[in-house]
Amino acid sequence: MDERTMLGLLADRLPRAGDDAAVIDGLVVTIDMLHEATDFPDGTTRYAAGWRAVGASLSDVAAMGADPAAAVAVYGAPEFDDRVLAFVDGARDVCEAVGTEYVGGDLDHHEEFTVATTAVGRTDDPVLRSGARPGDAICVTGTLGRSGAALELFERGETERANGLFRFEPRIEAGRALASHASAMMDSSDGLARSLHQLAEASDCGMAVETPLPIDDAVDSVAGPDERLELGAFFGEDFELVCTIPEKRYPAAKAASPTPLTRIGTVVEDGVTLDGEPMPDRGYTHEG
Amino acid sequence: MDERTMLGLLADRLPRAGDDAAVIDGLVVTIDMLHEATDFPDGTTRYAAGWRAVGASLSDVAAMGADPAAAVAVYGAPEFDDRVLAFVDGARDVCEAVGTEYVGGDLDHHEEFTVATTAVGRTDDPVLRSGARPGDAICVTGTLGRSGAALELFERGETERANGLFRFEPRIEAGRALASHASAMMDSSDGLARSLHQLAEASDCGMAVETPLPIDDAVDSVAGPDERLELGAFFGEDFELVCTIPEKRYPAAKAASPTPLTRIGTVVEDGVTLDGEPMPDRGYTHEG
Repeated sequence: MDERTMLGLLADRLPRAGDDAAVIDGLVVTIDMLHEATDFPDGTTRYAAGWRAVGASLSDVAAMGADPAAAVAVYGAPEFDDRVLAFVDGARDVCEAVGTEYVGGDLDHHEEFTVATTAVGRTDDPVLRSGARPGDAICVTGTLGRSGAALELFERGETERANGLFRFEPRIEAGRALASHASAMMDSSDGLARSLHQLAEASDCGMAVETPLPIDDAVDSVAGPDERLELGAFFGEDFELVCTIPEKRYPAAKAASPTPLTRIGTVVEDGVTLDGEPMPDRGYTHEG
Repeated sequence: MDERTMLGLLADRLPRAGDDAAVIDGLVVTIDMLHEATDFPDGTTRYAAGWRAVGASLSDVAAMGADPAAAVAVYGAPEFDDRVLAFVDGARDVCEAVGTEYVGGDLDHHEEFTVATTAVGRTDDPVLRSGARPGDAICVTGTLGRSGAALELFERGETERANGLFRFEPRIEAGRALASHASAMMDSSDGLARSLHQLAEASDCGMAVETPLPIDDAVDSVAGPDERLELGAFFGEDFELVCTIPEKRYPAAKAASPTPLTRIGTVVEDGVTLDGEPMPDRGYTHEG
């Protein structure tokens, strides 16, 4: 059974699941697991890993338009050395960057370096994935493709620059600013294409997106023209916010967002397209 | 560096850590990671694993005297099949058993079966580990040694009985009933001996404990007299509450607790002893 089929079965059992974070009684709660084989390429510092892992959970809180209350993590590794402290420093610093607190966690002896993170937030009015309506503007915060570019740089051994790109700012402030305007929102952790498909499915509508997309300059510095769109629109793990905003609220939303907001398209009745061509519901595919 | 040295270093950096759960603004948050090699013996059903993993986090909420608000989990495994649904059923059922809700989580492709769980709770008056004072009664809920007995049964292939013992009831109601009486509290997940040492260290006092301890009947059915104390007092993973209660409040606390409460000793100035002999600060050691 693939992951999506299973998530569908689970959604039937867990009515509060299926968004970036679960919502219950004014709280949002999210949990993530990252591990060496798939999430931390060779050269990733533990500081960047702590920042990134906790940041990923804070991004889920941001995507609900919520105010973060705290974050915790489990650090699982074969041994506990100074790298634990570097990890915790990264975790603390990303929390500080968005005005919340890293309050601790646990250690676990684990063969593979594995991290679990939770962030908790508060909101009385969460923004779900299901509220997009035809005619709404489709918008994205910041720029896309930083993580894809980072991976390319890790492969080339340019680890300092790569680690820098890996430390992203969770869009907490933007999420809160957009919460009163957006009809639907999620983060781009699975890539723009999958985010659009997920918003379309949850909202029972379509998404018509057009180039140019706000692709990060770092992508241009590592990728040729063919790879550019792959890294920007399909790679994911960027933790920007993808949201839909009723047309008449779009100017106010754009003005309110502390992170630059780019309109990339319009919600339509059905189909997910890029420049009029079907945009596949997939993640990154290496071209070479 | 061993785990305890590292936890000491981390405590300096993370003032809100070091208890069963972190406390911030009326919320308690805890995160745990369990995995096949150390936590789920051969024969553990995924239903029991889901119950137990989420139960472990709920036990941390109970140990703070808090009211659970929600629980989430990540299920990490090489493949996603019907066992995911069994796990989720276990997770839901343990939440239901204590009046809270399992609100979802995530899936992660992971070579080793690995589970991360979080529970969130609310309390305005958390019970910390640091409030024990000489003269207080030392008490424990329920019986000790169930998990040790279960492990022995898994080794013998008596998996049905073992899985039954693995599904414990988190002491949420007892924790809330004891919260207004107890001066210090934690759960027995590292074993009674380590719990006593941790309470003693956090409260800067000693613990004088006397037999008989409330050891579970299941222990007697699997262990000889030599192993009995090992499984009951050192093995751990039992998720009972260990607390200290001012002498004059002890009768009211005993009456209020919905789970039988046994007095096992008295808080003293220093030293952790069992029947007058030093009680080592260690977990289980197999005698054979």
